[in-house]
Amino acid sequence: MRVTIIGVGLIGGSIALTLKSRKFADQVIGVDANTIHAEKAIELGIVDIMLPWKEAVKMSDMIILATPIDVTESMLPALLEMCNNQIVLDVGSTKKNLCEKIERNSKRGRFVATHPMWGTEFSGPQSALNCPFDEKATVICDREKSDPDALEKVEQLYKVLGMKIIYMNSDEHDLHVAYVSHISHITSFALANTVLEKEKEEDTIFGLASGGFESTVRLAKSNPSMWIPIFMQNRENVLDVLNEHIAQLRKFKTCLEKENYEYLGELINRANEIRRILK
Amino acid sequence: MRVTIIGVGLIGGSIALTLKSRKFADQVIGVDANTIHAEKAIELGIVDIMLPWKEAVKMSDMIILATPIDVTESMLPALLEMCNNQIVLDVGSTKKNLCEKIERNSKRGRFVATHPMWGTEFSGPQSALNCPFDEKATVICDREKSDPDALEKVEQLYKVLGMKIIYMNSDEHDLHVAYVSHISHITSFALANTVLEKEKEEDTIFGLASGGFESTVRLAKSNPSMWIPIFMQNRENVLDVLNEHIAQLRKFKTCLEKENYEYLGELINRANEIRRILK
Repeated sequence: MRVTIIGVGLIGGSIALTLKSRKFADQVIGVDANTIHAEKAIELGIVDIMLPWKEAVKMSDMIILATPIDVTESMLPALLEMCNNQIVLDVGSTKKNLCEKIERNSKRGRFVATHPMWGTEFSGPQSALNCPFDEKATVICDREKSDPDALEKVEQLYKVLGMKIIYMNSDEHDLHVAYVSHISHITSFALANTVLEKEKEEDTIFGLASGGFESTVRLAKSNPSMWIPIFMQNRENVLDVLNEHIAQLRKFKTCLEKENYEYLGELINRANEIRRILK
Repeated sequence: MRVTIIGVGLIGGSIALTLKSRKFADQVIGVDANTIHAEKAIELGIVDIMLPWKEAVKMSDMIILATPIDVTESMLPALLEMCNNQIVLDVGSTKKNLCEKIERNSKRGRFVATHPMWGTEFSGPQSALNCPFDEKATVICDREKSDPDALEKVEQLYKVLGMKIIYMNSDEHDLHVAYVSHISHITSFALANTVLEKEKEEDTIFGLASGGFESTVRLAKSNPSMWIPIFMQNRENVLDVLNEHIAQLRKFKTCLEKENYEYLGELINRANEIRRILK
């Protein structure tokens, strides 16, 4: 199969590497507006060739949109326009707006809306990894709106990537990822800013920062050009969760202010219940 | 050397295992009020023998207090009282109150206040690891208040554990750890509670939770009997950082409410500067 990856960054690049090493793709064509990324993707052997997107689409069986979600949204209608029997999928972090936008598109059936739940705080083709998806979850949204053959091929693709497929509609998807992904990023960004604001002795941070701090601020290294469009798209859900998170932090604040350590214990015991969910 | 470890949990147990495997200690005596932990420590070969603390202290060259900080604070004066030439160190997460409490103790010189910056979200002897401290930082506080021979032996101990020693006074220590450790724990606890409050479909959390979420809520599994005393002891510093953190989160909230994505970009770019500090 010939696969085009639009956006040869962390996710697109990792998918390309994995599909090639697991023989799902005979040829991987890359598309990227960023010429530095394009050169790097060739140099690292992530893709076989870089082409302008229209040429690439014509030659391909499957097209994977792995750009920031705003780019995906603006490209998708024109891309579907060009398709005959090709299959198009995206791998973005929000789904509701995107799926609404193409709801009445005559080629809607060629598109499968997906979200592989893997990433790191790094970006660009130099951060791409071979086979990082094993055992992770991927979401396929609104599957009933995709043509059966397109859905089946995309399911095959995710099985080759080693992922567990979860099905939901795009509204549910956006709500759930606000909880399990987007709020974590806001928390990390804010925590980094808290420390950078208050702690002037940076050498001390560097020296003392142990596992705890590093893991909670790791996501603060994430790329704004990916994350701003996500927050724009999922604004209402993210605001809802963020309000709740601030309310929860205020409970901790009140406990400390009033020295109510019994209630503090209750809050921590409650938080410990996350063990039930995350082993 | 004969070393007594009071509190054979995650930290005490890991120190015991490492000191034995690196031949710093010929014999490790354990002390623990929790009989289940005591039995487990023997069963796992973490300590050679469990004894009541007064017996253990008499027989030892060095005594390591690895209990929750409130227990450390209440035991330390009586423990110093019993010492002749023994060396006593603690490994707790706050230092100011503890050091003030024994400031005028006639045996102050036998005590070295330390804080190895390593831990996991797990607790108890079953969580103890052999040699987890390599390349991590440890803090020694108020070194001028310890007898030179005691300080030297404790420095040797930390070199054997593989740690980089940072010196500061106990006030500075408590301020810095509020930033790089304590606030991360509050954030994680609050984030876990946010998700548990809002997300009723726990299976979904489990399915979707990928690296990002797991790393930010990992610390929410931490033990309240360790953490409540830390927050009590470092209340003012933690409140100060927590207020700043809530203010930083409100900035993200305002950006989303007002759809001010330019400022959101500035906030994220600023947060990205944490890369300068944490590679």
